Amino acid sequence: MVSVTARVRFYETDLMGVVHHANYFRWFEMGRIAYLREAGIDLNRLMEDGFMVPIVDASCRYHRPARFDDEIVIETKLSACSKVRIVFTYAVRRKSDGVILAEGSTTNAFTTPDGKVERLNDQYYPKLQAKLEEERKTTVC
Amino acid sequence: MVSVTARVRFYETDLMGVVHHANYFRWFEMGRIAYLREAGIDLNRLMEDGFMVPIVDASCRYHRPARFDDEIVIETKLSACSKVRIVFTYAVRRKSDGVILAEGSTTNAFTTPDGKVERLNDQYYPKLQAKLEEERKTTVC
Amino acid sequence: MVSVTARVRFYETDLMGVVHHANYFRWFEMGRIAYLREAGIDLNRLMEDGFMVPIVDASCRYHRPARFDDEIVIETKLSACSKVRIVFTYAVRRKSDGVILAEGSTTNAFTTPDGKVERLNDQYYPKLQAKLEEERKTTVC
Amino acid sequence: MVSVTARVRFYETDLMGVVHHANYFRWFEMGRIAYLREAGIDLNRLMEDGFMVPIVDASCRYHRPARFDDEIVIETKLSACSKVRIVFTYAVRRKSDGVILAEGSTTNAFTTPDGKVERLNDQYYPKLQAKLEEERKTTVC
Repeated sequence: MVSVTARVRFYETDLMGVVHHANYFRWFEMGRIAYLREAGIDLNRLMEDGFMVPIVDASCRYHRPARFDDEIVIETKLSACSKVRIVFTYAVRRKSDGVILAEGSTTNAFTTPDGKVERLNDQYYPKLQAKLEEERKTTVC
Repeated sequence: MVSVTARVRFYETDLMGVVHHANYFRWFEMGRIAYLREAGIDLNRLMEDGFMVPIVDASCRYHRPARFDDEIVIETKLSACSKVRIVFTYAVRRKSDGVILAEGSTTNAFTTPDGKVERLNDQYYPKLQAKLEEERKTTVC
Repeated sequence: MVSVTARVRFYETDLMGVVHHANYFRWFEMGRIAYLREAGIDLNRLMEDGFMVPIVDASCRYHRPARFDDEIVIETKLSACSKVRIVFTYAVRRKSDGVILAEGSTTNAFTTPDGKVERLNDQYYPKLQAKLEEERKTTVC
Repeated sequence: MVSVTARVRFYETDLMGVVHHANYFRWFEMGRIAYLREAGIDLNRLMEDGFMVPIVDASCRYHRPARFDDEIVIETKLSACSKVRIVFTYAVRRKSDGVILAEGSTTNAFTTPDGKVERLNDQYYPKLQAKLEEERKTTVC
């Protein structure tokens, strides 16, 4: 699991007075990018190497609203990974009391810039496998 | 089903050259609001009457990317409705060829401004039931 | 002048209950792109031809707030144009009563993808000059 | 001056491959809120006390593009303050080399929730005056 802390920005709210629901997917993205970095994968470099990483599936369950100026913790776990797909799960917690505000998951594909499936190569795939192995050990314990 | 047409805005794209995935949830919202209007429910008035309509669940499957300046059609269907929850499903099509770019669904709850569950009253509930009935007939045929 | 009509989207609001101020720059962008289209310039094609059009200056004065579900009219005028820069001015009106909600201006440069100044060529420049001429006549009358 | 550090988020980019220009105004907002906090003013509390703080004027000059994953520093200075208006200026720097990417300024008014001018009271105004005094001393030296 990789944790990222952020403070809720004013522009992330809407007229219901809480964070607009679409923004949680942006927070998941921040978590995902931080996770990849921890795994030794820089997204800019991955794209320079010709891989696009489009989202093919995303979902979120909203438990309680995040509010302006809240500190939040985005917890990201790798839950599955093949050479063509990668699945992450997320929990967004309010930092002050640890309450889970939302949970979700996403699936990304690896493709060429033209959108054709592109199998992840040996420069990248073992790094993700190592993290997945690590996650599994942690979950068991 | 209620259809809304829009043109993809420049700011909706990201550096992968296509629409950022979080924006589809914003398009679903546009579809949902248009649907409610068609059902005779104005969201501003609903909020003035003390109902908040927070999202409790949202998901999207992405089939093909929407691109800047594409004309898209957001098709919204009501698929379930009780006095405390409402479920919509969506398809986003590229207008030029009718291809489905993404499909999704959302669940909203009806709550007080404080976030407590609030049962929809007789001013609103029958309108939604009528639309749901209408959807079911259409789907059967 | 080129006018574009839009309906204020829910996600464009913030917790002060009105449209977040940064969104007016996105509306200006919509106006600008519509203006270019009217001038016979498709932004996608312009970029394919190797021109980037980065903003170098932007400003907005806010007179009255736009609110969720308002219909607005974005009025865009070309006010200056050379082979390396283009200046637009904007007014955003509430459609129901014509009241001006905000006014602004932007300057874009024409550059290569690497960000070097790139003079607009004969395929594009005369189109903008023609529109500028047209604006001046309209303004005089 | 108050400095805030942030990392450029993926969703902040657009298809030109750099940060969309409207996002700088969101960064200014982050800087402004941090500045107020430093001055002992919590924006949530200010709003609870009945003050809205709408933007009445905003501008930005863009020198160089911010890119995905860049670390940026948002430097905010209070440059003028009365009981009805407050003016901030901003510089956004790339953290790695200190280069200024953009500079801007904003003016906020203090109003009631209905949008009427509301003079800042003695709970808040002296705090801002103290910071303004501090800025002036710093600038002189």
